[in-house]
Amino acid sequence: MRPSGRANDQLRQIILETGFSKHAEGSCLAKFGDTHVLCTATVESTSPRWLKGTGLGWVTAEYGMLPRATNTRTDREAAKGRQSGRTQEIQRLIGRSLRAVVDRKAMGEIQIRLDCDVLQADGGTRTAGITGSWVALHLAFQHLVKIGQLTAIPLTDHVAAISCGLHEERAVLDLDYVEDSAAQADANFVLTGRGGIVEIQATAEERPFEETQFNELLRLARKGIGELVEQQKRAIGG
Amino acid sequence: MRPSGRANDQLRQIILETGFSKHAEGSCLAKFGDTHVLCTATVESTSPRWLKGTGLGWVTAEYGMLPRATNTRTDREAAKGRQSGRTQEIQRLIGRSLRAVVDRKAMGEIQIRLDCDVLQADGGTRTAGITGSWVALHLAFQHLVKIGQLTAIPLTDHVAAISCGLHEERAVLDLDYVEDSAAQADANFVLTGRGGIVEIQATAEERPFEETQFNELLRLARKGIGELVEQQKRAIGG
Amino acid sequence: MRPSGRANDQLRQIILETGFSKHAEGSCLAKFGDTHVLCTATVESTSPRWLKGTGLGWVTAEYGMLPRATNTRTDREAAKGRQSGRTQEIQRLIGRSLRAVVDRKAMGEIQIRLDCDVLQADGGTRTAGITGSWVALHLAFQHLVKIGQLTAIPLTDHVAAISCGLHEERAVLDLDYVEDSAAQADANFVLTGRGGIVEIQATAEERPFEETQFNELLRLARKGIGELVEQQKRAIGG
Amino acid sequence: MRPSGRANDQLRQIILETGFSKHAEGSCLAKFGDTHVLCTATVESTSPRWLKGTGLGWVTAEYGMLPRATNTRTDREAAKGRQSGRTQEIQRLIGRSLRAVVDRKAMGEIQIRLDCDVLQADGGTRTAGITGSWVALHLAFQHLVKIGQLTAIPLTDHVAAISCGLHEERAVLDLDYVEDSAAQADANFVLTGRGGIVEIQATAEERPFEETQFNELLRLARKGIGELVEQQKRAIGG
Amino acid sequence: MRPSGRANDQLRQIILETGFSKHAEGSCLAKFGDTHVLCTATVESTSPRWLKGTGLGWVTAEYGMLPRATNTRTDREAAKGRQSGRTQEIQRLIGRSLRAVVDRKAMGEIQIRLDCDVLQADGGTRTAGITGSWVALHLAFQHLVKIGQLTAIPLTDHVAAISCGLHEERAVLDLDYVEDSAAQADANFVLTGRGGIVEIQATAEERPFEETQFNELLRLARKGIGELVEQQKRAIGG
Amino acid sequence: MRPSGRANDQLRQIILETGFSKHAEGSCLAKFGDTHVLCTATVESTSPRWLKGTGLGWVTAEYGMLPRATNTRTDREAAKGRQSGRTQEIQRLIGRSLRAVVDRKAMGEIQIRLDCDVLQADGGTRTAGITGSWVALHLAFQHLVKIGQLTAIPLTDHVAAISCGLHEERAVLDLDYVEDSAAQADANFVLTGRGGIVEIQATAEERPFEETQFNELLRLARKGIGELVEQQKRAIGG
Repeated sequence: MRPSGRANDQLRQIILETGFSKHAEGSCLAKFGDTHVLCTATVESTSPRWLKGTGLGWVTAEYGMLPRATNTRTDREAAKGRQSGRTQEIQRLIGRSLRAVVDRKAMGEIQIRLDCDVLQADGGTRTAGITGSWVALHLAFQHLVKIGQLTAIPLTDHVAAISCGLHEERAVLDLDYVEDSAAQADANFVLTGRGGIVEIQATAEERPFEETQFNELLRLARKGIGELVEQQKRAIGG
Repeated sequence: MRPSGRANDQLRQIILETGFSKHAEGSCLAKFGDTHVLCTATVESTSPRWLKGTGLGWVTAEYGMLPRATNTRTDREAAKGRQSGRTQEIQRLIGRSLRAVVDRKAMGEIQIRLDCDVLQADGGTRTAGITGSWVALHLAFQHLVKIGQLTAIPLTDHVAAISCGLHEERAVLDLDYVEDSAAQADANFVLTGRGGIVEIQATAEERPFEETQFNELLRLARKGIGELVEQQKRAIGG
Repeated sequence: MRPSGRANDQLRQIILETGFSKHAEGSCLAKFGDTHVLCTATVESTSPRWLKGTGLGWVTAEYGMLPRATNTRTDREAAKGRQSGRTQEIQRLIGRSLRAVVDRKAMGEIQIRLDCDVLQADGGTRTAGITGSWVALHLAFQHLVKIGQLTAIPLTDHVAAISCGLHEERAVLDLDYVEDSAAQADANFVLTGRGGIVEIQATAEERPFEETQFNELLRLARKGIGELVEQQKRAIGG
Repeated sequence: MRPSGRANDQLRQIILETGFSKHAEGSCLAKFGDTHVLCTATVESTSPRWLKGTGLGWVTAEYGMLPRATNTRTDREAAKGRQSGRTQEIQRLIGRSLRAVVDRKAMGEIQIRLDCDVLQADGGTRTAGITGSWVALHLAFQHLVKIGQLTAIPLTDHVAAISCGLHEERAVLDLDYVEDSAAQADANFVLTGRGGIVEIQATAEERPFEETQFNELLRLARKGIGELVEQQKRAIGG
Repeated sequence: MRPSGRANDQLRQIILETGFSKHAEGSCLAKFGDTHVLCTATVESTSPRWLKGTGLGWVTAEYGMLPRATNTRTDREAAKGRQSGRTQEIQRLIGRSLRAVVDRKAMGEIQIRLDCDVLQADGGTRTAGITGSWVALHLAFQHLVKIGQLTAIPLTDHVAAISCGLHEERAVLDLDYVEDSAAQADANFVLTGRGGIVEIQATAEERPFEETQFNELLRLARKGIGELVEQQKRAIGG
Repeated sequence: MRPSGRANDQLRQIILETGFSKHAEGSCLAKFGDTHVLCTATVESTSPRWLKGTGLGWVTAEYGMLPRATNTRTDREAAKGRQSGRTQEIQRLIGRSLRAVVDRKAMGEIQIRLDCDVLQADGGTRTAGITGSWVALHLAFQHLVKIGQLTAIPLTDHVAAISCGLHEERAVLDLDYVEDSAAQADANFVLTGRGGIVEIQATAEERPFEETQFNELLRLARKGIGELVEQQKRAIGG
């Protein structure tokens, strides 16, 4: 039995709430159970300098966590004067994941910046961030179509993410903090709507794991991401 | 007529929503219209080193703003590697304001840290932060009483804050962003429940102002803060 | 009786010594008793980028303190790698105060940068800094008139500052360090030569104070600033 | 045909040269073709503070690159004042990978710090770093056994790493820089001597990839890591 | 003819003014012509951690320059967030120079920190800093003798410094800024009262120079430092 | 007898190994006994901004040390976020020394950046860095001549460096770490091939030294540098 009482292949309650932010061109508060990540998309009128003249746009991401999003307070990175390695790793992952489904030629020489800020953390903040950012990004593109700056939404597919892990010898889907802390292995999967692999990060926490176990994790991830993509469709009013 | 249609002495809609955070010992989402500031109180088991052995506790505050809390995106302070002068000014003000109504001897040698994070900004974030932090602080003290660490809540009074300003030649209460940007003068008042003055910060933005104008601003502030204190009472279930 | 033996409404000995710096376009060593602040004005040929093309100039300030300006040595901010919140708060205040009496259109698209460096501290460094900076700024403008870059001095009035406070239940003018450390409340007033209010910062240190007490502080400030303005007139050879 | 003329499942020339450093307790210059990474192991007499009293040791890693290790010079991180996200990601990976085969109870409350410094880069620096660090770590443990501080080498297995990728539609082993720059997908595998999975990081660079492709990459990795483990055995004189 | 009209072996006007600072245990404003460096000595009750238990004290120095000490304003190091290489080089030199004449055993396990702050610069700030710091240090030791903490002044000799250089083919003593900017070679000499060499830093600015020229610079330095030592004796009331 | 058994005027074994780096335009691994410094020269297509339009080029240097180059591990400067004063002092010295023999007009408006990275340290890293950098610089200029960007090598002479010191009352050449740690005085000499003086840095470590001693150190340096210049000639294939 999982600590939360969920079945092994059961997601937490997923809510993708749009329109949370008054100012952003697109926004989505992604809730995976008690993990709440606010994703906002900001449209910037130029792409980065190193893309000038290429006709290509750029999508990038930043990640942060409120100090008391966690059970024990985490020091504010702005006060410490540097972003942790973990923060940088996560924001690089989010940016890469989204770019895998963006038609950067079609979007033109602009930049869209996703901010993923964790209001409350209970495991899986990066996967909630990716899943919610896709919604925020879609809404920002909708906005650009609506105001006539784009003629179509330059997204080639959905992208969503979920964590799986080995917990007490069994493969489980969508780990919460309690499970994550005690997992033998932990894997994050980023897949497209059509099931293509965008990113896999699998890590043994305690002792090495086997290929058959890995395959079981991937199978669970496919199920969970299928459900997340359905939620994304509802969120964008599709 | 004010841009928002409010009367000169009318606050925006005020909501002090408690229990927003699952983890914090006390929390309050303070909404002054479209300004939303999440205030969390974290209890730490020791006071700062320089108070060791004095029998006194400490209350301090930190302030931050989500990058897209504002109309135009603001760069993340964690990414820039330093907190702005404005941020530091505000967090020092919030800490000082709360300490003015704390019985630091009665609280004992612990520290309570208030985090004020602006989820959405529309003027008056520091006054919402002070007003909401008092609620979060009260809830954290309630928690300490409940678990038997304290016998009574070591607060001597309420403290709340509001901005007033001179807008198109008239004194108005609780400026929103549009008014704030065009104000001739801008003043923040921090008062106690019994009307004592904790802090006044009045600034001419465009040209110097007169003492009679200042007195009118203070009169408005007294009215607004009276109403905020009523809201605080309701929020703490009083 | 005040520790210094001064009357309640008596300033310390005020000296505004011009020409202290060989290199600066304007300079003033402002002495308020044992508080000595060197103020230099540097003329820069362009205004900040965000003013380009507006026809407006800019006046800004920086503040620093020599490590042994204080009784106990203070660590060098350059060695620590960041300016404290207090430093940033003060330099923002000095800049705002001066801009309130500058005709930024008449000065044209240049920038004048005031550096206020505390050679010795005994309370009231920010008020000495503002008062001395006005003199340094005036001298820099005189220089620009003399070399034909300006036709008139683009200042609309004097500006000067003084601290007042509640010390042993009484309102007193121009606190020195001993009084400041023990004050119940501390207020800094920035007023123009004609008595207009530019900035008020009043802070309860120990317990809240009353409006009547605040009014008494303001009355003292008016008297002190009147005397400072006379000194400024003498300093600029008026 | 691969640019280097290698077969799809062929490693570059691998050299694990021990004793490169006069001072370190263990050292290994790992050469994967033109990629040269110097790995040194430093024994520290205490484990990190947060392990005090647990009886457990710690193994950690740092990573750096000489400015002209790369074809185009890379700015020195010490001069920029911060380590890039990429650097932090890699050094976290190296540390995690080694800890997966360390018996932290048996090593006792010490710390071993691996420094991986890239003298020359041609793709695959992190995999060379992990493979060489295992050798340096083993030598440092040998040293501790020799001087009588440990009775046996507290390693449970070998660990080694290799990159694989999809290059011109084919899965290839051990990408060099030219292949890496043009790869459709890029995966780093960290496996133990017995074939257990320690870490998988697979990233689509251009477009999503399929599960069958991923499985082919893993098959290649198993072959390559088998050969690397043989080299490690020779290097430690086994 | 030198730009200043001085003879080749003539110092600028030297003033070593003691008692400039109200707070410091020793202070000296060292003026070498228009170069004005404030040197303060701060006594700290413990020596650095790495000397704990050795019975030895430590003398160290920090160096700074007011932004408008120079003809063109120099950015404030505190604002830039780091001390320049030049600053660090100078403060290390000053500390080393003073330690060469301190009996660190006799002073006991305390630390004295010299702060050299350039109020106005016209060449030779480091040599003025060393020469004035010796006076400030002596005064601080006098103070410790007076209050009974030491029985004798733990200085083994004077130490003073001067720059010499090759200007328009001739060796000259005590370069001012105009000469320094145009010098073919520039050398700083730190000598003791008895003529021992503490430090020599000689640098070709434009083209290499000859040993005979170097010897001529050293001869000038001996003359100048002899005069500086006389001034130091007067300053300490000897 | 010296700890190493060398004669007083005997260098350690000197090896200047070219072509160590695959990528750099010029490279030299300079070995002075167990001190190994990798020097690479990078050609950049423009000179620094402040030289734009002057027709002059620039040569600059950076210096770093691998963490375990030293007997006790040194913390990584990139991790600490700042370069030490020692590092900055050394890299400024290397740059100055090389510029003394470069015809900056003849090289044109380009920049060459020397990176000196200490792979292993045993005293004298800065002198090995200067000596090896001259070789790397020469090779980079050869490369520019070969590709037709320059018509001749714009070097006016050799430059090389060596340390000398007073060790157990005797002057000795080329100190290793053991001697350096116990030296009474330590001097670094930078001379040209024709014997011109580029830089002298002589420091008393323990007590002041005499002019006759200094002259003996300089005599030793001339001998050593003569031999280094011969090695440089061989290294560049001259």
